[in-house]
Formats: sequence, structure tokens, C-alpha cells
Amino acid sequence: MSTVSVHGVGTSHFGRQPERDLVALAWDAVREAFADADVTGVDAVWVGTVFGPPGVAQRVLRAMGVTGIPVITVENACASGTTAFLEAHEAVRTGRYGRVLALGIEQMSTAFAGAITPEPTDPEGRSGLALPALYAMAAARYLYDGAVTPAQLAAVSVKNHAHALHNPRAQYAGHHTVEEVLGSRMIADPLTLLQCCPTSDGAAAAVLAPASGGSREVGVRAVALRSGAPWNHRSPHVWGHDVVRDTAAEAFAAAGLDAVSDLDVAEVHDAFTIGEIVTTEALGLVAPGEGGKAAESGVTALGGTRPVNPSGGLLSRGHPLGATGLAQLAEIVWQLRGEAGRRQVDGARLGLVETMGGGVSVLDGNACVVAVLEAP
Amino acid sequence: MSTVSVHGVGTSHFGRQPERDLVALAWDAVREAFADADVTGVDAVWVGTVFGPPGVAQRVLRAMGVTGIPVITVENACASGTTAFLEAHEAVRTGRYGRVLALGIEQMSTAFAGAITPEPTDPEGRSGLALPALYAMAAARYLYDGAVTPAQLAAVSVKNHAHALHNPRAQYAGHHTVEEVLGSRMIADPLTLLQCCPTSDGAAAAVLAPASGGSREVGVRAVALRSGAPWNHRSPHVWGHDVVRDTAAEAFAAAGLDAVSDLDVAEVHDAFTIGEIVTTEALGLVAPGEGGKAAESGVTALGGTRPVNPSGGLLSRGHPLGATGLAQLAEIVWQLRGEAGRRQVDGARLGLVETMGGGVSVLDGNACVVAVLEAP
Repeated sequence: MSTVSVHGVGTSHFGRQPERDLVALAWDAVREAFADADVTGVDAVWVGTVFGPPGVAQRVLRAMGVTGIPVITVENACASGTTAFLEAHEAVRTGRYGRVLALGIEQMSTAFAGAITPEPTDPEGRSGLALPALYAMAAARYLYDGAVTPAQLAAVSVKNHAHALHNPRAQYAGHHTVEEVLGSRMIADPLTLLQCCPTSDGAAAAVLAPASGGSREVGVRAVALRSGAPWNHRSPHVWGHDVVRDTAAEAFAAAGLDAVSDLDVAEVHDAFTIGEIVTTEALGLVAPGEGGKAAESGVTALGGTRPVNPSGGLLSRGHPLGATGLAQLAEIVWQLRGEAGRRQVDGARLGLVETMGGGVSVLDGNACVVAVLEAP
Repeated sequence: MSTVSVHGVGTSHFGRQPERDLVALAWDAVREAFADADVTGVDAVWVGTVFGPPGVAQRVLRAMGVTGIPVITVENACASGTTAFLEAHEAVRTGRYGRVLALGIEQMSTAFAGAITPEPTDPEGRSGLALPALYAMAAARYLYDGAVTPAQLAAVSVKNHAHALHNPRAQYAGHHTVEEVLGSRMIADPLTLLQCCPTSDGAAAAVLAPASGGSREVGVRAVALRSGAPWNHRSPHVWGHDVVRDTAAEAFAAAGLDAVSDLDVAEVHDAFTIGEIVTTEALGLVAPGEGGKAAESGVTALGGTRPVNPSGGLLSRGHPLGATGLAQLAEIVWQLRGEAGRRQVDGARLGLVETMGGGVSVLDGNACVVAVLEAP
């Protein structure tokens, strides 16, 4: 039984929107979330953003008339939005505030930096190990070990782009073939363009408050965060695997989850195709070494037994860094309410959100957040 | 009776230190704080930084062997460090974590931005209203109203630079005269160079845990945060006054403070001389319109009845944005333990920290944090 519920969610459209600004993007998300929750205000706000300049959260919120209350901006790389959600949840759970807004905002198309890149002073910077290269190394390892085939990597992209055909807010959707995915421009061998998430602008929001048994409230069973050193060189697993596994174990225990197979739907961090494969294995949604096969065979597709990323995921919905975690959350809320339209997972009762954050120093790891949510 | 205590604090030296990096600065602060608290680790970390790149907190912490635990980076402009303290306090208060590190880090001398400047798209950016200009407008208003004289403005600088003579970690200390201060280079009329805080690098840290009656524990009686719209054009007061007043009222009520006159020592946000004057009035440490006179007459000096900024304040100790709030806190902890050496306020039992954050959009305001602490 959850003591805290998500009472409303909202998002902007996702995509390159340089003609809009963060205020406009946030407005779309917050207005929808407030209407969805049937509220006109909150007691405090946690905002997740990676590249938003100092004070941007207050500027955005003042434009909406949200002033004079505590506003705390959090940064946890790609997991910034889910970190804002975690903190909002904690604030409601402990009674610190009655009603809290979690908001994620990012405009990458106009940002100074755009994507997260290593600093020259980091080992990663000196060796050219930007995030695409890091994921490519994981993919290369999987290929070498025979744990995945190129076609299985591509199948993740095919699946998520197809899912996004049913998501009108997605940045890129399309009927792609495995051949098209593998034939697209090489970004970081073996990852081709269609296996990499795009540069996105967007915002997403959620209103949290104590559970009151409402027919549209989605309960938060648990949410957990871990940081640091996800790439232990003594681990037999690739980058990211262990921190996802450990964070999920903490969340599952707190959620009182009997078995991971109880989960009906999941939104996970598919910044690159290999990311979804490693993550589904680390979460236990599929057996070790079965992530690629699951994508290829349709197990993780809509209509399969373990649907993953019905929204299209980061690959297709888009990846506006600080907004991503709350975009994932919004999708799971819609799924658990049965409001996901043509991408609805029938009878979804228990859902999962997983976000992985890698910062400038990707070897140090940034954060993994895992949340378990339940239908009204 | 406080339920949460500061068990240890530490800081780096403050000043322009481009030859060092954030890891080295943070190491100084964390090593000292851990030794001071007699601990070797914590359960979670909140980090305050303004210009640190994504994931910098994890990079810094991993270099010290602090990995695998939750790390949350917060940004609240100049109040980022005190916001990290607020969140760490809340985490211990609610039992979420047993022992928490609050860490503030900033290296402005090598940062892309250096100081916080308005964005071109903000009204402030279009009108050139950077923070020095904003404070200058407040000073001009005070001068026009006869609420302060140029010599009284300068007296704040004279006082804080003299305080810093007893602080070996301060960036700039010196025996200045009112004439020297008024004769230094004009930055934003009427504020001269010696009335403006410098660009600083530094780190500061605190270890928080449940109160256990230890002889060196400094209790946290209350800590409060407000954000947004500190410049209400309907207010008769200048920028910043009302948000400080309101945040302090909340903190004082939570602290069960009978009268503000019970406070023995305060570290407040003197980014510019006028800032200390407005803040001491807004806090009620001095009567309205008496802030300038209090500095000139010695009321707010060491040895006076209301000592303010014994460390030298932002003006003299320095202002490494994300580290400042925790540097203020460290000073108050030392004062309340009687460990402040030649700058000790005799018999200090109750102390205050106030930090004001103005972001890119200074009109929107960013954050004000006020904390009340008590001697062991």
C-alpha cells in the first residue's frame, strides 16, 4: 500500500524546439499536470535540469505564477528528473510538504553544451570516452561474448521507434527495419545513428501528494537512488549493469515486490540500444544474456510478455536530459491508469521507471534511480 | 532542543586557486570535516555547486573513496551550499539516513562563467542588470532615503576586512579605512571595488547526524528556505529584504526563538556592503534604517553587541558560490564551540546563518536560506 501518490502528470512535446524556451516547454508540462491533478498550486517544487543556468527553475516557475515557496534544483545528469521525483516523494512521505511538484526541464538544442561530454581533465576526456563511446564498448563486449548479435541490437531500435508511432509527443517514430538501423550512419562502432538517442528539448512534470484512494491516483510503492562507481573493474559486467541491479534490488525490497515478473510495464534508460539490453538484464526483467533475444523475439515489445519502453523510450520519444525521468514517469502513470491509448499495455497494474545518469566523468557514474508504481 | 547536530565541519582555504582543482579543494574540506566528526564515511551526500559540470560531485567524491551511496547535487545560486545543508538536515531529521555529508564546492577562477550573469533573454540581461548593478540600485535607494551614508556603506567593508585579519583561510584581509574603501575603483555606483565580494575558489563541508549530546555537537534548531519573487514592486523595501525577513520569520518560529536579540553571532550574505545592511535590518538584528549606523558604530563588529560576519564574510573571506553557505556554517559552528580563536565572540550560545541566492534572473529571486544553531 503506497502512502504517496502521483495525482497528475504532464509533458511537453519532445523534440528539437529551438524556437521555444524553457518557460514555454515547462508551461505545457505543468499546466497539464496541474489540470490532471485538479490543483492550482503546490507547496514546494523540485526541479531537475542538467544545463539550465543558475536560477532557471525560479525564472520558469515565476512565469507561471509559482513563487514564494521552496524551490530546489537538483542535478544528477540523465537521472536529474527522476532525482527530482525521488526528492518530491520523500518530502510528501515525511509530511514535510503536503503537495509537491516534480518538474524536469531541458533545452539541448540551444544549450551551450548540448550533450554531456567529458571534461579535458578527466581520464574519459583525455581518452575520448564520451558516452556514445562508453556504450559502444559495452556493445562490443556483448558482441564478443556472443551475448548479443548486431541484429538484436538493432531490434531494440526497431521496436522502440515502432512503439513511438503511437505516441504523438515522440520526437522520432517510424517503421524501421533491422537493415535500416544497421545501415544508418556509424556513430560509435557498433552503434549506428538509429541506435542512439537524439538531442531533445522538453519538459515533464508530476504532482505528488498523500494517497487518498482516488480513482486516478498512481501509488508510489518505492523509489531508490544510488550513485557512484558503476564501473567496477572487478565486475564481470559492463558499465552500468551493477548500479542498476543494486538500485533495483533496493527499490524492489522497499516495494515488497515478490518477483520482478510481477511488473507489467517498464520505462528504462535506452539512451543507446545496448543500454536497454543491459538494463533489462540487470533489472531481472529477462535472464542474463537474454536482453537482445527478448527484443528480437518481441518479448519486450508491446503485446509481448515483458513490454519495455512503450513510449518509444529515449531512442524515439527523445532524451531531454533533465526531463527524461519525469517523461518516463508520465508514461508509466498513463499506462497504470489505462490512458495510454494505442500503446496501452492491457491490464497493467505494476510499473517500473529506471533512469541511468552518467556525468562528465562517466567512469565515476552519476546516479541510478528506480521507481515502482502501482495502478489506482 | 535540537534533534539533529552538526558533528563536524571543514573548509579549504578561500581565494583564487586556479592551480588546484575541485577534487583538491573538496578534499581539504571533507577530510577536515570527517576528522572533526571523528567518522570515516557517511550514508548519503548533498552537494551544492553553481557552475560544477554534470556529475562533478560524483567525480570529486569518488576521488576520496566516497562511492556507492546516494549523491544529490543541488543548485540554488549563492544559496546552493546552504540548500545542501537544509536537505542534509531534513534527511537526518526524518531518519532517512543516519549520517549525511553536506558539501559545497566551487572553482570560479577557472569556470566558464565565473560570476552569475543574466541571460540575454531575461529582462535583467537586456537592461544590464547584473548582480552588482542590482545591489547598487538598493544602495542608491538607501542613500536617497537617507537610510545610509557612503561612509556607513564603507564601514561594512572596513569591519569585515578587519575581522578577516583573524581568519587565516580568508581570501582578502586588511586594515582599510573608510577613505580607502570609498576611493577604490568604482564598480557599480555607489559600490566601489572594496564593497564587492571577490571571485573565489573553495569548498566547505559539514557532517550531520542525530543529536547525541556530544560536547562538540552544534545543534540545528531550525533551517528554512524560501524562493521566488524577492523583488515585489509593491514592497516599500529594496531587493532581497522581504524574502530574508520572511524566511527568517519561518526559521525563528521553528527554532522557538523568543527574540532575535537572543542571537549571539551571525554570518550573513554580504556579497556587497549594502547586502549586509539590508540583511541585518530584514533579520531584525538591528532596527529598520539602523544597519549602516550599526556598522559604523561597531555594534555589528567583533566586540559589539550584535557581531555580524566575524569570519570576514563574503567580502573578505571570499565567495565561492556553492561553497559559501557551508563556509558560513563552519564559522558559526566554530563560534558556538568556542574554537574561533582571535575572532571568537565570547560566550556565543546561539548563532545564525543567512544566505541569499540570486540567479540569472535576479528579479525572480532564487533562494534564501536561514539557519539557527545552538552551542553544545
